[in-house]
Amino acid sequence: MKLVCLDLEGVLVPEIWISVAERTGLDDLRLTTRDISDYDELMAHRLRILDAHGIGLSAIQAVISTMEPLPGAVDFLDRLRERAQVVILSDTFYEFGMPFMAQLGYPTLLCHRLDTDGDRITGYTLRQPDSKRAAVQAFHRLNYQVVAAGDSYNDTAMLAEADKGILIRPPASVVAEFPQFQVTRTLPELLAVIEDALTTL
Amino acid sequence: MKLVCLDLEGVLVPEIWISVAERTGLDDLRLTTRDISDYDELMAHRLRILDAHGIGLSAIQAVISTMEPLPGAVDFLDRLRERAQVVILSDTFYEFGMPFMAQLGYPTLLCHRLDTDGDRITGYTLRQPDSKRAAVQAFHRLNYQVVAAGDSYNDTAMLAEADKGILIRPPASVVAEFPQFQVTRTLPELLAVIEDALTTL
Repeated sequence: MKLVCLDLEGVLVPEIWISVAERTGLDDLRLTTRDISDYDELMAHRLRILDAHGIGLSAIQAVISTMEPLPGAVDFLDRLRERAQVVILSDTFYEFGMPFMAQLGYPTLLCHRLDTDGDRITGYTLRQPDSKRAAVQAFHRLNYQVVAAGDSYNDTAMLAEADKGILIRPPASVVAEFPQFQVTRTLPELLAVIEDALTTL
Repeated sequence: MKLVCLDLEGVLVPEIWISVAERTGLDDLRLTTRDISDYDELMAHRLRILDAHGIGLSAIQAVISTMEPLPGAVDFLDRLRERAQVVILSDTFYEFGMPFMAQLGYPTLLCHRLDTDGDRITGYTLRQPDSKRAAVQAFHRLNYQVVAAGDSYNDTAMLAEADKGILIRPPASVVAEFPQFQVTRTLPELLAVIEDALTTL
């Protein structure tokens, strides 16, 4: 039996922090793990910026509520769920991800959560270390073969753990470092590759 | 972080084998594990009946396609998925369950599958022993607290493994044997108890 694990940001929805940076005009929020490699440090930086500008969770959620899934993502997910069980594995937080889930028809989302004090974001709780890989391992223990797709470096452990790992629109650096993963460029192409994997695995 | 595991038959949709028995007029298909306690023996019995009457998978799926979720189930699931991640844990087979998933908005379904030769059902593959309990254990390993709900004996291992186990419309025998599980009678009541558990766990 087979199950599909999908990354969220960059695959089905825009990069959330970058979109929030664009819509709030706070360019400092554009930094990613490419700029500050330590995730805890990056998040501390982001939370300091939000605090300095008095931006609370509700303001960010208001921004997110104006954002839409990437073009074709709703159709892609609808068609995929007719064929297979799908679970979204993301490094976002539920507080940011759930408005998108509403637009995507509420697929199951496994991710992290923010710590808040009223409207102020005080920190965050990562559900577990290496959470995407751990989720694929869990589905393996439930006797599923796993097809996984993602777009960036933080997906590669999940892709390596899966029975079939697929990249979509990856940066050249990821393609160079992980030549073992098939590369796709569009959601229809990704759908075709996943459907093929579901048949041939 | 919290996740809700729900049984399918008797909670969200009718008992599939009983409905198939009613609609095909094959009363022998009404037998359940209360009549033949050994599951393998019961399934062998069912497959012999289907074979004897030349009833293939497509005929059963045609019957299933005329069936609907239980009253209120779509609304219940829609409202629950706004609040929490939901995974359906069932002892049915994907070939029977997926037509219902279409009607329920494609929640994630973890269950078993049939073996077929063309249209003939030749056997079945249980994904793993004690699969509902194993799924709750897997979500625990992913650091989720689990709220689980089901209606019958085959759910009790899942309910015991969960952080909060809830029965809905259970037979009196299950209530007597498992007094530790809260009993609910309707889907709105179940929703209220789940929402309370999500808040207080």
